[in-house]
Amino acid sequence: MEGINVKLVDNMGTDFRIFEAAKATLGGGTESNFKEGETDPTRLIKFLANERHVTPFRHPQVTFECEAPISIARQLGKHQAGFSWNERSMRYRDSVIDVFTPDMFRGRPTHLHDGSTEEDVSKEVAIDLDQFGTVSVEEIYSQAIKAAVTSYEVLVNAGLAPEQARFVLPQGMVTRWIWTGSLYGWFEVYRQRSSGHSQYEVREFARQLDGIMSELYPIAWEALKDTIK
Amino acid sequence: MEGINVKLVDNMGTDFRIFEAAKATLGGGTESNFKEGETDPTRLIKFLANERHVTPFRHPQVTFECEAPISIARQLGKHQAGFSWNERSMRYRDSVIDVFTPDMFRGRPTHLHDGSTEEDVSKEVAIDLDQFGTVSVEEIYSQAIKAAVTSYEVLVNAGLAPEQARFVLPQGMVTRWIWTGSLYGWFEVYRQRSSGHSQYEVREFARQLDGIMSELYPIAWEALKDTIK
Amino acid sequence: MEGINVKLVDNMGTDFRIFEAAKATLGGGTESNFKEGETDPTRLIKFLANERHVTPFRHPQVTFECEAPISIARQLGKHQAGFSWNERSMRYRDSVIDVFTPDMFRGRPTHLHDGSTEEDVSKEVAIDLDQFGTVSVEEIYSQAIKAAVTSYEVLVNAGLAPEQARFVLPQGMVTRWIWTGSLYGWFEVYRQRSSGHSQYEVREFARQLDGIMSELYPIAWEALKDTIK
Amino acid sequence: MEGINVKLVDNMGTDFRIFEAAKATLGGGTESNFKEGETDPTRLIKFLANERHVTPFRHPQVTFECEAPISIARQLGKHQAGFSWNERSMRYRDSVIDVFTPDMFRGRPTHLHDGSTEEDVSKEVAIDLDQFGTVSVEEIYSQAIKAAVTSYEVLVNAGLAPEQARFVLPQGMVTRWIWTGSLYGWFEVYRQRSSGHSQYEVREFARQLDGIMSELYPIAWEALKDTIK
Repeated sequence: MEGINVKLVDNMGTDFRIFEAAKATLGGGTESNFKEGETDPTRLIKFLANERHVTPFRHPQVTFECEAPISIARQLGKHQAGFSWNERSMRYRDSVIDVFTPDMFRGRPTHLHDGSTEEDVSKEVAIDLDQFGTVSVEEIYSQAIKAAVTSYEVLVNAGLAPEQARFVLPQGMVTRWIWTGSLYGWFEVYRQRSSGHSQYEVREFARQLDGIMSELYPIAWEALKDTIK
Repeated sequence: MEGINVKLVDNMGTDFRIFEAAKATLGGGTESNFKEGETDPTRLIKFLANERHVTPFRHPQVTFECEAPISIARQLGKHQAGFSWNERSMRYRDSVIDVFTPDMFRGRPTHLHDGSTEEDVSKEVAIDLDQFGTVSVEEIYSQAIKAAVTSYEVLVNAGLAPEQARFVLPQGMVTRWIWTGSLYGWFEVYRQRSSGHSQYEVREFARQLDGIMSELYPIAWEALKDTIK
Repeated sequence: MEGINVKLVDNMGTDFRIFEAAKATLGGGTESNFKEGETDPTRLIKFLANERHVTPFRHPQVTFECEAPISIARQLGKHQAGFSWNERSMRYRDSVIDVFTPDMFRGRPTHLHDGSTEEDVSKEVAIDLDQFGTVSVEEIYSQAIKAAVTSYEVLVNAGLAPEQARFVLPQGMVTRWIWTGSLYGWFEVYRQRSSGHSQYEVREFARQLDGIMSELYPIAWEALKDTIK
Repeated sequence: MEGINVKLVDNMGTDFRIFEAAKATLGGGTESNFKEGETDPTRLIKFLANERHVTPFRHPQVTFECEAPISIARQLGKHQAGFSWNERSMRYRDSVIDVFTPDMFRGRPTHLHDGSTEEDVSKEVAIDLDQFGTVSVEEIYSQAIKAAVTSYEVLVNAGLAPEQARFVLPQGMVTRWIWTGSLYGWFEVYRQRSSGHSQYEVREFARQLDGIMSELYPIAWEALKDTIK
């Protein structure tokens, strides 16, 4: 989706690494959880996921290059313990400013905690401007964004420090960051951000994350996802 | 400062607690660092700060109620390890929206990494509008803010979900959060955010933090501050 | 229990603080989760616990003075994120050495992952020493401990550095530390360490923790405990 | 060293990755810190290290397989924030027990905080046993270790649960763990554990870590080490 992107940069380890780490921890011996001579990691990984023995899932690491509107990045950024986050600063610079425009403008829910309805209100008539006709939600949105970015540029050109001028930039401005975390850390991001309670744009991030992780760690990722209800 | 505020909610421990914690750790005995019968915590606390034995400074805890513009809150929020941060959500609600207006509009620096000059450009003539005269930086700023908030309200009234409408809200919007951390954690916030490299508005936050912490933990706070250069 | 102790040093906040923090976050307004004019925190705290909105439970902080055998302290110490741990060092000193002796010596389980049986083997005949009769598990244990501590003392008196001499000290040696964490952090310690899979001595620690926390935060602690199974 | 080992398992990223991450963060443009077209990462990495812009050093990750005596592992384990640690449990098992024996037995320092002298006291006469002659520090140490391990085995064979029997095992027992952390995290371990204040055995761990890291990330590791006084 334009403005919401998760791109793999690098990763470390495989499903087999989790298996090896768990075996090293459990040691040889007669424990019921580890079978001597077992080479397929599937059974042990499922056991670890179900019993919430999560430490072996913390060794594989994945780095992503991400982009999202600021208000979406802020929700994602609540996951911090054990993550590394390196974001492009807007303080010093007047680089090109991208602002997010939703694919679909969603309706306001009756119960506020639902976030939004599934209804498309893009063409909703927002204001009747007498002789000029009416303006849609989509048009008001795009004009608001344009006006804000123009004000920013006028202010910077007039000599205002960018660090202050950016106060007028919209929260839909797209930001970019490099984000590194462990397999288990990414699972927690996915679990919390893929739920129906999350904003659609946040779920889109989770959806892209899911696609990449299930290719990198097919056994472990599925075993962890199976623990979500 | 209007829109940047640090207010004490609660705290735990005193300078004397740090002294006691360090004594418990060092134990009795013949160590040179701990003097039997010493009751004034000053010498030991200075020793701990200078030797970077920071763990005793991690037991006292302080909770603040904070407010700052979103782009300032984001800079502050990089300090996360060991902190608890509870922010008011804008996703569900159309509550009153406050947007930050700087006390002084600062000039753009020659070297971008300086952030800003000390020069006041509030009255700087920004654009010559022919017959309408000129508009100052201050006016462009305040009109940009007003236009953005109006667009948000129009969009929400037209039926758009607040979680999408807020993409047009400015990054100068004031947000509020409850923030808890340890004495040492707060010192790290102070150290990094009081430097001349920090944005003026961030330093204002650090300045208020400093005032409160130096009252709560006069000996420890000063001993830690003495380690900065 | 001799050698396993949790003692309250200080705490910050009450159930009411969690209620206030959550209210500040949720804000006033029409949200279904927050009822205007509600003064009893019970309903809202239960809601937060059930929905796993854990951040409000992270602001109250509690400091304990703890003691436990080293191998038990190591299991407890796996909980680190957001905690402060200040332990008495054995590196420099020849202070008095306490070693833990179990109340009851428990039998070896058939399935190793069960940890131990409920059976008391204290008097179990361990070795038949011909003319000298037999020695019980209890006696072998206490003699092993005594021999190790004596060796440590002989080594230190002979001029060996305590940091090396302590390699002969037993893992049952009691260590003492100051430990600070948030209400939610302590709940996680409790949840993981009170389960039937945990070693009896670890559960004893969890039991004492439970007693103190349920007095300090009766509503929140119970609401969190209700989420376990 | 027998009983103290750091072995590389896997790693992610290179010096060039840090360079790329920093460039992505700084963005293109006119910043003095980033030179358009620069391809040698050395200058930028040194700049980042000196200015303590540490986040780009947090993306590369390294996994080690480690072994060390328990009392050394405990000192190392104080570094936890952002690390993953997976240790072989001794709770369930009666696997082979290795106990650490120092290469050299060091003398007791006059000032306790020095840890130990450089003097070899291995042959120091510890006790005069009348007709039996004298016993060296080395012999007392090795007999103490042997006696403790024997007691453990006798207790387990007599039917005591291993989780209790291990209380008699010495703190010099070698433990094994898988440890994953970021390049910057490992630098912090190195910085704190290579100092002259650290125990010799801890410095040995740091020395091995240094050897591996300086091969994996030659530019970044040296730039970081240059910041230590």
